[in-house]
Order: sequence, then C-alpha cells, then structure tokens
Amino acid sequence: MAVPYKAPVKDIVFGYEVIDSYNVLNKISAFSDFSEDIVIPTMEECAKFSEEVLAPINAIGDQQGATIKDGVVTMPEEFVDAYQKFAEAGWASISLPSDIGGGGMPITLSGGTLEILSTANLAFGLAPGLSAGAISAINFHGSQEQKDKFLPKLVSGEWTGTMNLSEPQSGSDLGTITTKAEPQEDGSYKITGTKVWITFGEHNMTENIIHLVLAKVPGSPEGTKGISMFIVPKYTVNDDGSVGDSNNVSCISIEEKLGIHASPTCVMEYDGSVGYLVGEENRGLNYMFTMMNEARVWVGGQGLACASGSLQGAAQYARDRVQGRPVGMSKEDAKNSTIIDHADVRRMLMTIKAYVDAMRYLMYDNQLMLDVEYFGEDEEMKAFGEERCGILTPITKAWISDLGVELSNIAIQVYGGMGYVEETGVAQYLRDARIAPIYEGTNGIQALDLMFRKLPLDNGQAMQRLLSDVNKVIDEMKQDDEELVSMAEKLEKEVNTLSEITLWLGSKMLEGELVDASAGATPYLKMFGQVLGGYYMGKAAILANKKFKETGDEFYKDKLTLSKFYIEQLLPLASGYASSITAGKDDLYAMKAENF
Amino acid sequence: MAVPYKAPVKDIVFGYEVIDSYNVLNKISAFSDFSEDIVIPTMEECAKFSEEVLAPINAIGDQQGATIKDGVVTMPEEFVDAYQKFAEAGWASISLPSDIGGGGMPITLSGGTLEILSTANLAFGLAPGLSAGAISAINFHGSQEQKDKFLPKLVSGEWTGTMNLSEPQSGSDLGTITTKAEPQEDGSYKITGTKVWITFGEHNMTENIIHLVLAKVPGSPEGTKGISMFIVPKYTVNDDGSVGDSNNVSCISIEEKLGIHASPTCVMEYDGSVGYLVGEENRGLNYMFTMMNEARVWVGGQGLACASGSLQGAAQYARDRVQGRPVGMSKEDAKNSTIIDHADVRRMLMTIKAYVDAMRYLMYDNQLMLDVEYFGEDEEMKAFGEERCGILTPITKAWISDLGVELSNIAIQVYGGMGYVEETGVAQYLRDARIAPIYEGTNGIQALDLMFRKLPLDNGQAMQRLLSDVNKVIDEMKQDDEELVSMAEKLEKEVNTLSEITLWLGSKMLEGELVDASAGATPYLKMFGQVLGGYYMGKAAILANKKFKETGDEFYKDKLTLSKFYIEQLLPLASGYASSITAGKDDLYAMKAENF
Repeated sequence: MAVPYKAPVKDIVFGYEVIDSYNVLNKISAFSDFSEDIVIPTMEECAKFSEEVLAPINAIGDQQGATIKDGVVTMPEEFVDAYQKFAEAGWASISLPSDIGGGGMPITLSGGTLEILSTANLAFGLAPGLSAGAISAINFHGSQEQKDKFLPKLVSGEWTGTMNLSEPQSGSDLGTITTKAEPQEDGSYKITGTKVWITFGEHNMTENIIHLVLAKVPGSPEGTKGISMFIVPKYTVNDDGSVGDSNNVSCISIEEKLGIHASPTCVMEYDGSVGYLVGEENRGLNYMFTMMNEARVWVGGQGLACASGSLQGAAQYARDRVQGRPVGMSKEDAKNSTIIDHADVRRMLMTIKAYVDAMRYLMYDNQLMLDVEYFGEDEEMKAFGEERCGILTPITKAWISDLGVELSNIAIQVYGGMGYVEETGVAQYLRDARIAPIYEGTNGIQALDLMFRKLPLDNGQAMQRLLSDVNKVIDEMKQDDEELVSMAEKLEKEVNTLSEITLWLGSKMLEGELVDASAGATPYLKMFGQVLGGYYMGKAAILANKKFKETGDEFYKDKLTLSKFYIEQLLPLASGYASSITAGKDDLYAMKAENF
Repeated sequence: MAVPYKAPVKDIVFGYEVIDSYNVLNKISAFSDFSEDIVIPTMEECAKFSEEVLAPINAIGDQQGATIKDGVVTMPEEFVDAYQKFAEAGWASISLPSDIGGGGMPITLSGGTLEILSTANLAFGLAPGLSAGAISAINFHGSQEQKDKFLPKLVSGEWTGTMNLSEPQSGSDLGTITTKAEPQEDGSYKITGTKVWITFGEHNMTENIIHLVLAKVPGSPEGTKGISMFIVPKYTVNDDGSVGDSNNVSCISIEEKLGIHASPTCVMEYDGSVGYLVGEENRGLNYMFTMMNEARVWVGGQGLACASGSLQGAAQYARDRVQGRPVGMSKEDAKNSTIIDHADVRRMLMTIKAYVDAMRYLMYDNQLMLDVEYFGEDEEMKAFGEERCGILTPITKAWISDLGVELSNIAIQVYGGMGYVEETGVAQYLRDARIAPIYEGTNGIQALDLMFRKLPLDNGQAMQRLLSDVNKVIDEMKQDDEELVSMAEKLEKEVNTLSEITLWLGSKMLEGELVDASAGATPYLKMFGQVLGGYYMGKAAILANKKFKETGDEFYKDKLTLSKFYIEQLLPLASGYASSITAGKDDLYAMKAENF
C-alpha cells in the first residue's frame, strides 16, 4: 500500500518566505494584507482536504481509470464524489478574481495549494486546472453576456471547462488546424472538426462541460494568424442558466496512456456544434497566449508534485526497511538500522529533497511574478513582472517537469524491488509525471522559447537583470557566515559560466547563426535551471541560517544542509552542459535522417 | 502501432571489431576460428528469428501479461508457441559448452544475440536467461549424476531453470534467509520456505521447471557462510529422465509490476520439497557468485536493448511526423520537412544513438573478458580476464541499466504526445527498462562493489592498468587525423580527472575513511561509466576513420560522428560528478532520518 500522504505544509510556508512573497505582494493594493495568516491556514485546510479526500483515491483512479462506452466517459465513482466536495470547498476558485465569484487571492497562493492537490492526486487536479484556463480566457476576452452566461457555474465548479487546440496533424504547430467555424445569421458559428489530446473533454462529474475551441473561419488568413477562439458548450445553455439540448459534441475515443489514467484524454468531434466567438476573429492564438504562462507554470508544478509525493513514500520505506549493514557500522548497531543508514540511500533522498526545495522556490517565484505582471500597481511594476515571468516560465515548465520524471525514478530505486511493484504507488508517480515534459508545449519548445524569445528581451538586458539579482544574493551570502561564503563561491563559479555562455549565445544570434543557437537550446535551459536552483537555494540558505539562529528549530538547520548539498553536489552538474551548448549544429546534422 | 523491429546487425558486427574480439579470442584454442564468418550469419539468423517471432508478440505480452489462477500461471499462448520455436532453433544454448549439448560459442557471441533477442522481447528473454544461470550452476558445481539428470533438457530448452535467492526479509542481504533444508536418509534434503522475486518461477511453457534454491541446513553457520544451494525440480525427475510426481513446489502469487508483464515474478512456496545439494554444504553463495558476473552483464544488456529498441521507433517517428518549421529553414523547404529536421529532435536521437554505441562496446568487451577469464590459455591470461571483468561488470550493470531508463525516456519525448500513448510501444520500453537498475544487485550495490572490491584490486594496480589502456588509446588517437587529435584532448581531460579522483578515493580508503568513500560510490560509478564510454568511442573512432578511408562507406563516417558527439557533448558530463564524489559523508547524514 502507498504511504498516506502528508502535505509538507511547513516546507511550503517556508517557500513563501524564501521568495519574499509578502513584501512583494503587499506592494500591490489588492494584496496589501497578504501574510502568513492567510498562507498557513489555507495550506492546512488544503492539506486536510487533499489528505482525506484526494490522496486515498489516487490509486483507484490509476487502476480503474476513466472508461468509455458508446461515447460516454465514466469516471471512478469516488472521483465523482470527490469532485463535488472539491467544488463545494471552493478550491477551484481560490485564486480567481472576487468579482466573478473567486476567492480573490493572489496566484502565488495557488502555488502551494496546487502543489498539495496535485501531489495527492495529479489526474484529479487536471479537471479544475483546465477549467481555470477556460475561465481566464472567457474572463479576459469574452463579452459581458458570455461572462454572465458561462462564468458563474464554471467558477463554482458546477461545470468544468476544457481547452481544444491540437488536431491530429497539428500538435506543436497550431498553424495547420482545419476545424471550421462557419458564421450563422444569429451571430453564432457552426463548429466542425476533430480535436485531439483534450484533457477531461468528456466525463460524468458535472452536468455540463464548456469547451474552448480553436477553429478557422472560412476566408481567414493562413497559419497562426487566422485562428479564432470559440466557446462550445457540451449542452446548450438556456437563458436562465439551465442546461439545454445536446450540441453535437461527442467524444469518439480516449487514449490508453502510460499514466494519469483518471484523466480522460479525449478525441473530440464537433459536428456542426454551436460556438460563440470569443473576442474578435483571428485573435484566438493571442488569447491563448495570455493564459499560457500560467498553464506552463502549473505543468512545472506537476513535476514538483510527483517528486514531492514520491519522496514521502521513499523516505518512509527507507526508514522502515531493514536490510544489510551500512559501510562502517558495527554488526550490533546494524541490528537497529534500516536502509536509510546507507550512504547511497541517503544520497538518493537528499537529491530528491534538495531538488524539490529548489523547484518549489522557482515555481512560487514564477507565480509571484505572474501576480506582479497582472496586478502590479504601475506599468513599471507590471513590465518587470512580465519580463521576469517571461524568463522563468520556460525554465519552470521544462526544468521542473524533467526533474519530476528523474526524481520519481530515483524514488523507485530507493524502494528496490518494491518500487517496481505497482502497489507501493511510487511507480504511479513516475508514470503520471511523464506527461509533464510533453504537454503545454514540449520541453524542446520551452528551450526554444527561452533562447529565441526570452534571451533577446530588451536586447538581453532582461537576462542581465536576472543574473544581476543572482549576483546580489551571492554578495549577500559572502557577508554571511563562513559556510555561506563557501557556498557563495561555488554558486558564483557556475553563474559566471552561465553568464559567459549567455553572452556567447547572444552574439551568435546577433551574427544570425540561429541554427547553431537552436542546437544548444535544450542544454542551455538545463544549465539555466540548475543555476537558478542554486540561486533560490542560496536565498533559502540565508533565510534558514537567520531563522535557525533566532529559533533553534532544526527544520531551518535542515534547510541550510539541503542548500549546501544542492550547491556543492548538484549544482556542479550545470557546467557539464557547457560544451554541448556551444558545440553548434554541425554534428547534429552530420548523419542522414535515414541512418538513425 | 509499434514500428516493426529491425535488428542493427551492422552496428553489432562493428562492435565486435571495436573491442578487437577476433584477435583476443583467436588466442584461445577453443575459439581460434572465431571470426566474422561466425558473427555475421549468427546475427542475421538471430535478427530474422527475433523480428519475425519475438518482436510481434512483445506488445501482446505487455497487455495480457502472465496471469495466475489457483496457483497456475498462464502465459499468453503466443509465448508458449514462440518458446517452442526458440528452443528448437537452439538460441538458448548457443554459448553453452558443447560437451553438455551447447553451441560451444564464446560468451562474447551471445552479447549480440542477447541484445537482439532482448530488444525484440525483453520479458520473453528472461526465461532462457534464468535457465542459463541454472545450467551454469549445475555444470560448474553439480555432480555428474545431477548433470546427467538435469542438464540435457535444460540445455535443449525442454525445461527452464530459475534462481531462488530472495526472501521477504532478505533482498540485497542474503545473510538473513530462513528457508530450511533438512537432510534426509537418502542423501536428499527436505526444502521448506518462501522465496520472492522469482522470475519465471512458474509458467506453462515447459513440462518441468528446475529451481535452484538457496537454503540453510540446520546447524550451519550464521549469515552468508551458512547458505547452501539445492536443485529443486517442480516435478521430480524419473531415472529415465521423464517427469514424475509433484514436488510440493507452488506459486502463491505473482507481482503486479510496472513492466515486463510477460515475465511472471513469483512468490514461491517450498513445502517439504525434495532438494538435491549442489556441491558442498554452506558453499551456496560462492557458487552463486561464479554466475553473478555473467548475469550482471546480461542485465546491463537489457538496458542497452531497451535504449536501442526505443531509438528505432523514435527515429522512425521523427522521420514521419510533419510538424512545425525548424529554426533557419525556409517555409518552402519546411513543407517537405519532418521533425527530425529540428535541432532538438536531432540532439535527442544523437544522444540515444551515441550512448547505445558506447554501451554496446562496453558490454561486448565485458563479455570478451568473461571468455578470457573462463577459457584463457594460461593462468596469466585468465587472471587478466578476471581482473578486467571485475572492474567492468559493476559499470556495465549499473551505468548501462541507468541509461536504459534515461534513454527510453528521451525516446518518449521524441514522440511527443504519442510517446505517452501505449500503442506506440515506446512507453513499454521505459517500463520494461526500469527493472534493470534494481535486480541482480541494485545499482547502489554495484557502486559499492566498484569502490570497495574493485578499486583496491591488486593494491589499485588493476585500476591503473585499465586507465593505462585508456591512455594508450588516447595516444593512438593523437597520432591520427586532426579530428581525432581534438577528440583525444577532450578525452584526456576527463580521464585525468577520473585518475585523480581514483587516487583520492584510494587514499581515503587507506586512511580508513570508508564511509566517506561509500558516500561517493554512486557518482564515482557514473563518472567512470561516462569516461569508459569515451574510451570505447575513441577506439571506435580510430577504427571507423580507418574503415571509412578504406571503403568510403558512410556507415563508418556516421560512427566517427557519433564518437565525436559523445566525446565532445556527452563525456563532459563526467566532471560534473567530481564534487559529489569527494564531498564525503557529512551532508548526507546531517539530517535526522525522520526529517526527510
């Protein structure tokens, strides 16, 4: 049996302090009161709900999965019940604006709740996660009539929402979609086409599902500039808000996947379904982009969730399992020893735990920057949020989601043979985690985004400002205790390498050597993530050192140890990417395609 | 659907030349004729069989799996048929000694056949693989009577064999087993106990199963020195070799696993079963060790197989899938472009393919050293084989099996969303590959073996001899073309780091700082593997360069490119492990166990 989930509330709360969230958010009038008095009880409540309602059905969802028969998708009944409780408790809307019925909390707060909910049950969390995207799209770009008609029940969770982008021939490249939207006399459109990879495209948890669908109006420009966005409800909605007739929306099939079995991935068919244009024609992809950062950060969070969850199980297993005599331990002592006393098991657990901390700080900071971008008091503040968020997002999405797979994989190793057996639940974390590097823009696309959109921002000055913030933390560490000075020197070495390589890439791009730059995009993102992790672990070290002196609480001593371990033993992997970043394109293209 | 498997025969044959197998084996009288005239047709035959019989049922095995009902384990019927064909074709016995009915071929030859068979169907290959272990044990350590009774039908494949080591409380540490072996008046023993993780412990592919069981004779010494080995047939064997009565051996349950679903992992119960002592009492673990190197190399080969198989599918998908415009390509050109033209996809494919080559050379060389150890003409030759094999084996097992997981994981990414869908078969490679780092001694145990048994061999001289062989290749590269000189310099840098760290570890151990050394064991093995990979890729580069000049065949040009890519872009990851190897134990043990 899987270890019962216990949310790491204290770690999460510490994360909010590491990224300085209170000071930053309090500068925003809407969040001037944001403090630990909000964060702590929220996380405790969320922990209770997740531990009691969501975690116990995670394995059930994996084993039973969503099933389809005659176009009807059936969820395990425990999920239907849990969804009702989830919606009633208001978890779906905590960070949505209060004027549409949400909790009015900063997005930053949802970092912790999303982490907890997703660790407890990743597949479950995808339904409200996709709803949030649909809500944002309608709220930002829809008409007042559309908002009045669709938002209340989406926000309350009575209905769910979906995002319909991909088609069989259009995955990463949406320019080639063919779903057709024909204007009707009443101002609506008739939507016809097939959409694939639609998460929770069909299910029996709510009475209606509101699909946001990308489609092309006949005569619109070719490629990405001719895409429009439509609201297409599963059942039409009457003027009184009640559910009306079928709208010719059907689920043809669901995918047999490696993981997230309780999240139905649907092939959807729209057969002359009534759709309502969101905003203006041909602006659909722009509207989609406004939600993309938030969604990508959330997908990074899914990697964090799987790593964090698998750590708990692995640590418990390592504390319980009696086996072998650790090197250097007497036979007598070994009688009371479990495998957590083996250096190698320790190394695996330290590796996961240190990365989880670094990933958490990065993700929360990224969300903080979303709040600054969306709700900043002035244009300067908003612009800074947008700039920083722009750089962090591809790293959060790709670096963390890759690590989610790698660390769940390490957790399996801690269990030994039991890790390979499904009943311990750790294998599910690996299988569930594996989707995150793929969807919401593959990690390869994130790397291109970092290289070609983010590195050149403000002529490279945006990047320099981030690196300069890193150096400020290094300077601060150098003024601190000896242990931090030593860490600062190691961090500085890696930051310097990153800075040099960033400049080198910038000059390559200025020279027009774009393919050479693209060849290094993925290792560059990996190096960047590893170094940024060091930056956050440095910040955490300063804070933890201070708080340990104030309180004597060994929790803070442990945080210092984890920072030290990260900076001394994990961060140095960053330099290993240098030569592949600068190697250029030639060797990648030397072989003919057919020779692979 | 999965891409039909096509065995990489030319790559495999090239591998035999890279490791200089013909020159080495021809010095052994039994293999004086060993040449490409044996290797090429063998691999071609094996490819044909694997492509036609085993690969097509790989997905069936995954989906249906082995099932159990009332103690009867049923295989998919396609597996029962395939096993008959496999045994009849003689693949089970190709590298077994001819005096017991085997093919009399060197173990080295089975490197290629095992790779092909395992890529086609990993789960299937585990049955004959375990049989081979049982055959070796009986052949090396059994009495003539036992050999006459059990070997013919094991060698012919009419029966299969198993290895029964683990018990619920005894996994990595066999010193604590409790299965009892009570001597009977007729010279046999009565075996009673429960064994776990027994691969193909029960199935319906053959009429009998011969279990090799570790058990304790009452009154024997405590711990590993009191373990004996027994032959325990599922059904007793009559004097004429026919199958007799049930022997009270039963399968209680099989595990629900992440992968290798068509390989039943059994909990076996021996309830007063008749067992025959192999060799002498209390020597069981020693006998087991004689087969361990071979088995561990084979498990490394499983990682190679999954990486190689997943590469084929990913490359084909990348050649077929039209999506997006590669950086720097005109819109017009992009119309005929598939995702293999994207630098990032190229990087993923190059990474898998280069590692697969390096892994292949390492595994084949390790098997070559097994032949030298077992069949060497004189003691000096045998001693060299034993020494080199000792060092290579933990690296082959751990480095390759870890990479098997990592590279299958990368292959999934090449497929994008289709990689997460089971029907493409690539997810199965990841799930199947995940067992290899765990069984046959976890990779953590391999790292301890390398550090504490192999590094000190002959006072460190054995390690120096290996490093000196690496340096000889570097010298040879420096005498070659400019491209190889440049590669040599990069390889030298990493070898020097490895040498320094090896010396540092040696001195730590001399100082008795064993826990500090153990703390660095896993990163040391990873660094060692990465550098050894560079050594083999260097050897391959010399050979490929020469053959390309002789033949103009672009296959060799590609091999040169792959070596260059490995040495310039993958090998530098090695240095990233340095600081974690030398960091010592303190940070690993700073946190209390309950705080993880």
